[in-house]
Amino acid sequence: MSRRTAAVLVTGSEILLGRTQDRNSGTLARSLDLHGVRLERVVAVDDREEHLRAALRELVDGGYDLVITSGGLGPTHDDRTVAMVAEATGRPLVLDEGALAEITEIVTGYAAARGVEVELLLPGARKQAMVPEGAHVLSPSGTAPGVIVPGPTTVVVLPGPPTELQEVWGRALAHPALADLLGARPERRILRIWSVPESTVARRFEELGGDGAGTETSICASRLEVEVVIRYGPDEAAAANALADGIAAEFGDAVYAQDDASLEERVVRGLAERGWTIGTAESCTAGLVSARLASVPGASEALLGGVAAYANAVKHDLVGVPEELIAAHGAVSAEVAVALAEGVRARLGCDVGVGITGVAGPGGGTDAKPVGLVHIAVVGPDARETLERRFPGDREAVRTNSATAALHLVRLLLDAS
Amino acid sequence: MSRRTAAVLVTGSEILLGRTQDRNSGTLARSLDLHGVRLERVVAVDDREEHLRAALRELVDGGYDLVITSGGLGPTHDDRTVAMVAEATGRPLVLDEGALAEITEIVTGYAAARGVEVELLLPGARKQAMVPEGAHVLSPSGTAPGVIVPGPTTVVVLPGPPTELQEVWGRALAHPALADLLGARPERRILRIWSVPESTVARRFEELGGDGAGTETSICASRLEVEVVIRYGPDEAAAANALADGIAAEFGDAVYAQDDASLEERVVRGLAERGWTIGTAESCTAGLVSARLASVPGASEALLGGVAAYANAVKHDLVGVPEELIAAHGAVSAEVAVALAEGVRARLGCDVGVGITGVAGPGGGTDAKPVGLVHIAVVGPDARETLERRFPGDREAVRTNSATAALHLVRLLLDAS
Repeated sequence: MSRRTAAVLVTGSEILLGRTQDRNSGTLARSLDLHGVRLERVVAVDDREEHLRAALRELVDGGYDLVITSGGLGPTHDDRTVAMVAEATGRPLVLDEGALAEITEIVTGYAAARGVEVELLLPGARKQAMVPEGAHVLSPSGTAPGVIVPGPTTVVVLPGPPTELQEVWGRALAHPALADLLGARPERRILRIWSVPESTVARRFEELGGDGAGTETSICASRLEVEVVIRYGPDEAAAANALADGIAAEFGDAVYAQDDASLEERVVRGLAERGWTIGTAESCTAGLVSARLASVPGASEALLGGVAAYANAVKHDLVGVPEELIAAHGAVSAEVAVALAEGVRARLGCDVGVGITGVAGPGGGTDAKPVGLVHIAVVGPDARETLERRFPGDREAVRTNSATAALHLVRLLLDAS
Repeated sequence: MSRRTAAVLVTGSEILLGRTQDRNSGTLARSLDLHGVRLERVVAVDDREEHLRAALRELVDGGYDLVITSGGLGPTHDDRTVAMVAEATGRPLVLDEGALAEITEIVTGYAAARGVEVELLLPGARKQAMVPEGAHVLSPSGTAPGVIVPGPTTVVVLPGPPTELQEVWGRALAHPALADLLGARPERRILRIWSVPESTVARRFEELGGDGAGTETSICASRLEVEVVIRYGPDEAAAANALADGIAAEFGDAVYAQDDASLEERVVRGLAERGWTIGTAESCTAGLVSARLASVPGASEALLGGVAAYANAVKHDLVGVPEELIAAHGAVSAEVAVALAEGVRARLGCDVGVGITGVAGPGGGTDAKPVGLVHIAVVGPDARETLERRFPGDREAVRTNSATAALHLVRLLLDAS
């Protein structure tokens, strides 16, 4: 595979202060990868003119096919990305009449809606309509248009707010200036593997010959999951399939997906396909599983609801866990996890019940039941899955991993039924 | 305030592919800011030798007081950050006997626990014990030690896994080589403001004279909140306090915190101080509020639990919302939000009940009840707070903002009682 290269420049003092997490570089990284472009560098700088100038110069002169910037397109004088890009690409700034008309219409509507005098906003609109000479203008999502500056290095200038960036980047991808540069998307095979060490997956990949035939594979671990992405061109399909099928065969039902769908989507879709409903009873996770299921559009096809059964009284009163069971085994026990799952299944009248109880920490651990110990039970119409695990990490890691593990148990129950 | 400067280098192909979100640069950014160091640049590159070499050269020669790297410290040959740092700082790699002993002990324990032959791990241990000559070694958190390389630019090399990075960075901060460089921490005043536009806060800040007296202020908006941080040295305390107090006076009880505590901590602490308990009944958020309350260590002091009342039957059966009320007003209505809050308060016997119902989208919106419309009610022993809002953005934004707004209503109820 021959690949275009790219660099991304993220601007914003709030990112360099650690007050805001940059999400735009990740959005662009995933999109570039889908289009077969190799992102080689991401740079983040604050809003100072000299920092922005230095970073842009370096990237525009860095030999990349594509440089994408995020942020600094607002209406005020300290939003200076477009002017700096004009300088770095050696083009004067010129007024784009089409952009001016478009932005004026947007701010006029805004002014009317908010009862602001539109005259106050027009200087900003004019500033935002100044673009490097010869650049292609991309319609705004908010008030800031994007810009594509052609050249040996094509520069794409995008607004900073994540939803605006996504929309204007979509327009850039559809624009001929970029579509021609990018060419055809590479094909890909994806394998998502649960609870197998990354090194084990990597070893199997090497045994299968690795990327020797020209494929480009990434193996990335995140918490309990390993994701393998095999990118390939038209001539490498056989090699890619041999790799993917060889890995899938090795890890069996630990391979829980061969597409980009999230685990939550996979579970909701699997339940809906069977016409099954689900309910949760969560102690240490206190609603993480139900909230993650509800994150899927159309979750109501499968999700009835759940109980955050944090206090023991709630386990008993709302889910029907017998007080004697808690007294005999402790709230964190396999028995209580099963009772939570069975109880919520009965109370809600759903097909699948999920029960979770654990010691999230940092306090509350004992020798017998240390911090990180979690019991999970998933009870279906005619089968059940249970898990006892001791998760490493802090409270957030224990709770998040517990919720992920619970979703995997539902997935295993569905796969087995 | 005079400030040290720093740059951060993040390495890892998985970040450039957008498969993993870099969290280390944010961790380091916040820590550097606390120590009065100005982080001027963050660079992310993949694991290729030439990319790593080029980025390190630039940063080490970039005139920063401090360069911090994250990742690439593993036991295999493609973990090459330490070797590249040695090259960039012109120091040979030498074996550190102390580090070797420490890593050997760690991998010996690991091998025994996993039933692996320790001989297989010793070459990796030896590789990880090679450090630039004259560097200070920081004890590992996993198996990879960190290093501090002194120089006109001090280079701190840290492991990539976030929990390891945090631990080894803590050791770096405590090491004299870094402690001397950093000097005294600046003071700071923090104001966290709810539901006021960033531009309104910025205007008030300018009216109060801005940073004219030498303070350094950042104003960052994230979703529904604006956070003002005023950093100041010993001579600027009066100016900083005048700014902070002026902003606090302007925005009254919209200023919900003057410290770094999270909203969740603020709410749990406020409830516990009053000896109050809380329960939730959430439709569109389906457990986000209960899960966020449970994220606070010691949440059981206040949180009894909640119901993810996603389906109408669950609103009725578990929370006691009358079916006629849902039929008359619809599930997304002020009446049902109040009934959810009152119902969960009665069922759980808690002091404060939270009810949320809304149209998270993307489907399900109507002209009368569009996507983003959310009703929230918080009912306490002798007062209640309610809110109707139409949140912009996608399903995730609507649900997250709804949960945040609900926590703020609890906070307002506590402030008023």
